[in-house]
Amino acid sequence: MAIVMYDLAGADPALRFSPYCWRIRMALAHKGLAVETVPWRFTEKAVLAFSGQGRVPVIRDGDAVVSDSWSIAEYFEATYPDRPSLFGGATGRAHARFINSWADGVMLGGIARLIVRDLLDVVDPKDRTYFRESREARFGMSLEAVQQGRETRVADFRASLLLPVRLVLGRQKWLGGDTPSYADHIIFGTLQWPRCVSRFELVAADDPIAAWRERMLDLFDRLARKAPTV
Amino acid sequence: MAIVMYDLAGADPALRFSPYCWRIRMALAHKGLAVETVPWRFTEKAVLAFSGQGRVPVIRDGDAVVSDSWSIAEYFEATYPDRPSLFGGATGRAHARFINSWADGVMLGGIARLIVRDLLDVVDPKDRTYFRESREARFGMSLEAVQQGRETRVADFRASLLLPVRLVLGRQKWLGGDTPSYADHIIFGTLQWPRCVSRFELVAADDPIAAWRERMLDLFDRLARKAPTV
Repeated sequence: MAIVMYDLAGADPALRFSPYCWRIRMALAHKGLAVETVPWRFTEKAVLAFSGQGRVPVIRDGDAVVSDSWSIAEYFEATYPDRPSLFGGATGRAHARFINSWADGVMLGGIARLIVRDLLDVVDPKDRTYFRESREARFGMSLEAVQQGRETRVADFRASLLLPVRLVLGRQKWLGGDTPSYADHIIFGTLQWPRCVSRFELVAADDPIAAWRERMLDLFDRLARKAPTV
Repeated sequence: MAIVMYDLAGADPALRFSPYCWRIRMALAHKGLAVETVPWRFTEKAVLAFSGQGRVPVIRDGDAVVSDSWSIAEYFEATYPDRPSLFGGATGRAHARFINSWADGVMLGGIARLIVRDLLDVVDPKDRTYFRESREARFGMSLEAVQQGRETRVADFRASLLLPVRLVLGRQKWLGGDTPSYADHIIFGTLQWPRCVSRFELVAADDPIAAWRERMLDLFDRLARKAPTV
């Protein structure tokens, strides 16, 4: 029986754009696990009540219910140890947690400051008020104000914020080394979010990160490349 | 025969403060390898000519000469595989490279902006002109101007720059997981630099990073705790 995954969707149910859900879509494919995704919208908190919380991704695997992308990745690694490894052992997992923390604590906020207003145009109509109010409360200003000036600000985002990723990819093919690991899925999933919801390009064409992203888009029978974007 | 390591020293030859050399001092102790350190000053480039470059750390292990802290850590892991592992396998090493890149590309610069003028007071007299000129060229302003306003700026450093480290240490005892790994030595070594050269405290006393740093200071028979500071 396929694993069921609740996956953030837009007004177009085929548009899937959560950075956390993309990490898990890639992790599922990495493990070769079949999945049925259920489109979910921000305001459908009640639909997730069975998971004891209100955010996606949530997966149901037989009797097991797991939420939080990091916990789901750990669950896959523990439950399907004979399939290709996401972490390459306990130390690899511990080190990946730093990359996950950096992506959540630094990278996501940096990206939001460049594309958060664009998201308003793709979320489901019933989510729009929730989305605007919750994000404007978080930033302390209008979505329009947050995103303002991005044409000039993106240079600093590319030079400074993406620097650690660029330094690594200048030395090795994947963040996981010779083969992709969950570290690749963390950073790729985070970049797949703006790629799906905005036409504003965050990664310069001549950046090694762009070439690596093309390789990621081709993984698993071009799973992420086939996904709809705006 | 003990490994020889060229180690950045101040006017006081016992004061050792290079963030890169500290990573390797900790890695040597982690592997249980004996070391003889040779105090070295910034302007003694000729002393390192045998290594084909002009920066420390440089180690000589029998006939092997290795420079660059990351390369030295990889050399130890490959040459002494039966001793406690620094990386926990190929994926752990690949993921640690992200942490190393973040420390070099983000953390070091953030710390320098808070303590770089203090360094001038501890470097060897013969290094002072070199140190001031090279660092002022890098920052495009005087050392005094770089460090100005640190009493207020340190709050942002703590909240934003140290955030990924804090998030990890809220979930696991060491950056390496249940035991220290080279990831711990990277971040600890980087923090040992300001700790040795400045009385300005970068880490708040109630930060989980402070508690972890105390544990790091106690490792290897209190190796780093015994080191002189200003």
